[in-house]
Order: sequence, then structure tokens, then C-alpha cells
Amino acid sequence: MHLYRSELSQQFIDLFLKTIQLSEDEFEMVLAHYQREYVPRKFFYLRAGQVCKQVAYINKGSARIFTQDNKGGEHILHFAFEDWLIGDLESLYTGSPCSINIQAMEDCELLCISKRNLDKMEEQLPKFKEWHISKQRKAHHASINRLSEVKTLSPEERYLQLIEKHPQIFQRIPLQYIASYLDIEPPSLSRLRKRLLNK
Amino acid sequence: MHLYRSELSQQFIDLFLKTIQLSEDEFEMVLAHYQREYVPRKFFYLRAGQVCKQVAYINKGSARIFTQDNKGGEHILHFAFEDWLIGDLESLYTGSPCSINIQAMEDCELLCISKRNLDKMEEQLPKFKEWHISKQRKAHHASINRLSEVKTLSPEERYLQLIEKHPQIFQRIPLQYIASYLDIEPPSLSRLRKRLLNK
Repeated sequence: MHLYRSELSQQFIDLFLKTIQLSEDEFEMVLAHYQREYVPRKFFYLRAGQVCKQVAYINKGSARIFTQDNKGGEHILHFAFEDWLIGDLESLYTGSPCSINIQAMEDCELLCISKRNLDKMEEQLPKFKEWHISKQRKAHHASINRLSEVKTLSPEERYLQLIEKHPQIFQRIPLQYIASYLDIEPPSLSRLRKRLLNK
Repeated sequence: MHLYRSELSQQFIDLFLKTIQLSEDEFEMVLAHYQREYVPRKFFYLRAGQVCKQVAYINKGSARIFTQDNKGGEHILHFAFEDWLIGDLESLYTGSPCSINIQAMEDCELLCISKRNLDKMEEQLPKFKEWHISKQRKAHHASINRLSEVKTLSPEERYLQLIEKHPQIFQRIPLQYIASYLDIEPPSLSRLRKRLLNK
């Protein structure tokens, strides 16, 4: 679906005009290379085994990125909210099948750019390329932090970090996913929540 | 310490001349912006709280990258071997203190490039920049895989993956670090190893 300026969120416009500092003309050019996609709640944006063909900017909504063990158990690596980029860059750049699943937790509105258009925009707009590289660096840092949290913190400490970063998370995400993210059972999370709220 | 061509490993020369496909002149220019550093076994290359000022290529040796919990317990995020880049890119690019520790597990010979020289080389040599970005992408992918492994696999499965990737690891790395990487106690690792060797 083609993108019309009037339908864009202010956040996306500010991203390109203020953060990346594109000119109006450059922004119009970039827009012509993006397209909008809707992924309803619970639908998959990407499944393990598929090849990732594009990078998506979450304009609205949230998703969970998870892997499955060989018994079918799901393990959430990350939650993704507005202003995140989702996709599997290794798969995008090498053509190998991806190992992660990305599923919408809320109705998602995504602004997507194909590999081909991404390469073209990166070549034509160095500022756009710098932004994309810095986004990848931040995503890498987020993965290291998440790994560090999983190895270092107790479920209670992880819970406290999560609600500090995302105070509205319980209003947006089903309890079962938050429990899975924290590696505890849903009833334990309910008890933990109640105990900390009463403190 | 200045780098002399005659002292370089073939791997490093091949990296720049074959993989990155620099010309001889470009390679000489890059070399002039690197310097060699030695980090003896058990010494720290980087400590949490410091600001990372350079990117190091492991020419020889190995290191462990770990975080500490608030009781002082150490948790290994990654092992790094030859041909890896080590450092904390978030700290390098933002100037924020890093949260990871990098400690040599064997005597290390590192080829280091400062942030300033890195920026300069990336600007002057697009091929060098592309290589560095693709290295970052691979490191990101390695972090996602490691997170996925930690969440998804049993210690035995993680052990099998580790020795598949690094068959010589028990000859190079003390058992206690391998046990810590796998999140099991050293005696359990010894038993696991013995059991699998006898299969």
C-alpha cells in the first residue's frame, strides 16, 4: 500500500525530518520507497524458516520476537514497540532462512522497505544509511543487554526493569507473554505483581 | 606499537586484501591507522564502567566477555577467538560507560583502531566501512543466537553446540569458564563430558 503523507504519524515524520535531517525532497523520495502493511493481532509477520525480504518500522502496535525449542516451547527474546525496526538482518543480507518468529501482539501498522529499496536509499542518502546503521547498533546493544539480564538478574529484578522501561506494558501485553519473557509462570508473575504493588 | 607488514598474520593480510579487496596502497594506508597491543592472559582489556575508545581485532588469543551481577557473580556472554572484533560499540559511539568486561583467557595479540581512525578509514574506504558494518551485523546475529540458545537449549545441547563450533575449546579454555558459559557447575560439566565421550 502506498504511503500518503497525511496518514503518517508525527513520530515517523519527525524521525526523517528532525532526527535523520532529510530535506523535504529527500523525505518524499524515501516515502516513495516505503509501503504500509497491516498485521492484525496474533498474526505472524515472520516465521522461522522463511527468508526475510524487508525491514519494517513499527508505526503502531507491538510484536513479540521468539524462538521455539525442539519440543515446541516458545521463548521470547524481545518485545518490539513503536519506533523499533523488526526483521532478521542476517537473513535479509545473506538470504539464509531466519530462526526467529515475529508475531503481532496488538494490531500493527508497519512501514516497510524492501532490501532493494533499502540498498538504493542507503546509496543515495548517506544520512539515511547512518541512521540505519545506528539503529542496528542499538538493536545489537539491546540484545547484549537482554542476554546480560537473562544471565544476571532474578525474575523480580527483570520485572522491575521491564516496567521501568515500559510502564504501560500490562495494559498492552497479555500477562502470559510477560511471564514468558521473564521466564516465570503466569501465577508467579501475578503474585509477584501483587506483592510489589502492596509494598 | 606500529604495525609492520612482516609481523602480520596471513589471516589479517587475507582479510584486507582478499575479503575486503583493498588494493596494496589502501592496505598500507589502513595499516598505518592500526596499532598492535598485547594483553597477557587474565589481564583485562576493558572493564565495566570504562569508556571504550577503540575496536580491537583478535589476531591471536582468546577472551571472555562477561557481566557481573550485584553480588559479584560473573556471567559469560560470549567467548571471542581469532578474527573476532572486541569492544563495546554502544560505548564507543555514545561515550557512555560500558557494562561489559573483556578479559584475556590466553595471551592476546590485538590489532587496534581508535574511533578517530576508524571514522577516517570508513570515510575514505567504502569497502572498509562495508566490512565493518557486516562484522557488526554478524556480532549482532551471534548475540541473538546466544540469547536464543540460553533460553531454548538444555546445558547438554549448549555443550554440543559449543564443541561443534570450537572443537579445540577444552585445549584452550579453562574448564571453569566453559562451565560458567554453559551455566552449570564445573563437576557437572566434567561428568557430562565423560558421559558423552563414553557414548
